[in-house]
Amino acid sequence: MTTENNNALFAKGEKLTNGYFTGDAYLETLLQKDKNNNFVMGAVTFEPGARTNWHTHPKGQVLIVTEGEGWYQEKGKPAKTIKKGDVINIPENVEHWHGATANIKMVHIAITNYEGETNAVWLKPVTDEEYHEANK
Amino acid sequence: MTTENNNALFAKGEKLTNGYFTGDAYLETLLQKDKNNNFVMGAVTFEPGARTNWHTHPKGQVLIVTEGEGWYQEKGKPAKTIKKGDVINIPENVEHWHGATANIKMVHIAITNYEGETNAVWLKPVTDEEYHEANK
Repeated sequence: MTTENNNALFAKGEKLTNGYFTGDAYLETLLQKDKNNNFVMGAVTFEPGARTNWHTHPKGQVLIVTEGEGWYQEKGKPAKTIKKGDVINIPENVEHWHGATANIKMVHIAITNYEGETNAVWLKPVTDEEYHEANK
Repeated sequence: MTTENNNALFAKGEKLTNGYFTGDAYLETLLQKDKNNNFVMGAVTFEPGARTNWHTHPKGQVLIVTEGEGWYQEKGKPAKTIKKGDVINIPENVEHWHGATANIKMVHIAITNYEGETNAVWLKPVTDEEYHEANK
């Protein structure tokens, strides 16, 4: 389902059903990898409570939060609040997750660099316990 | 001068005084080139009437318009309107300019790829005649 919102920067895009997300998340692809751009770029909408699985990027990823408020957590560290206007430069091969807070929707642009043909390695879901710990 | 605007996605940043822009344009740097990201990323604010010089990028550039409305023109082609939410994938080595319309401010994120240590080749200013032709 594609939905439009005149107040939003981008269309909401397609609901993600790839098994790498918990809750309702949507992807609007903005740019595919090509000969100049060694990354894919998309706008990801996380409804309240929605988050990625734990995952890594072999060549890192840049997030630009364009709406709302959410969480970014690297394994073994406390979750950090991220909000509209924030830029997060995620290092290579660091296990992490990102998503909305329990009560506030978040939208971010994701610029995901490639190493060869790979840009992400997906791991286990963020459990409700892990997520509630962030939202305490 | 750095100014903040609570409604805007990013800070307005520093006024550009490098001679590569006509009118009042501002840059908020969002990310520097590093080992994972072979690009620099910034938010550029063009007040009405402001525009870049003609220029090229050896490895292309991606623009994401986050506010307002402006122009993008490649040499020898008509100027195209660009507006909030648009993504422009600028090819390598194509002479072009971008900027606000005569009456509407524009803000865009610019993701500028590097070829070696170079990301742009700056050329002549866009004359008032060229700019008014776009705004007809």
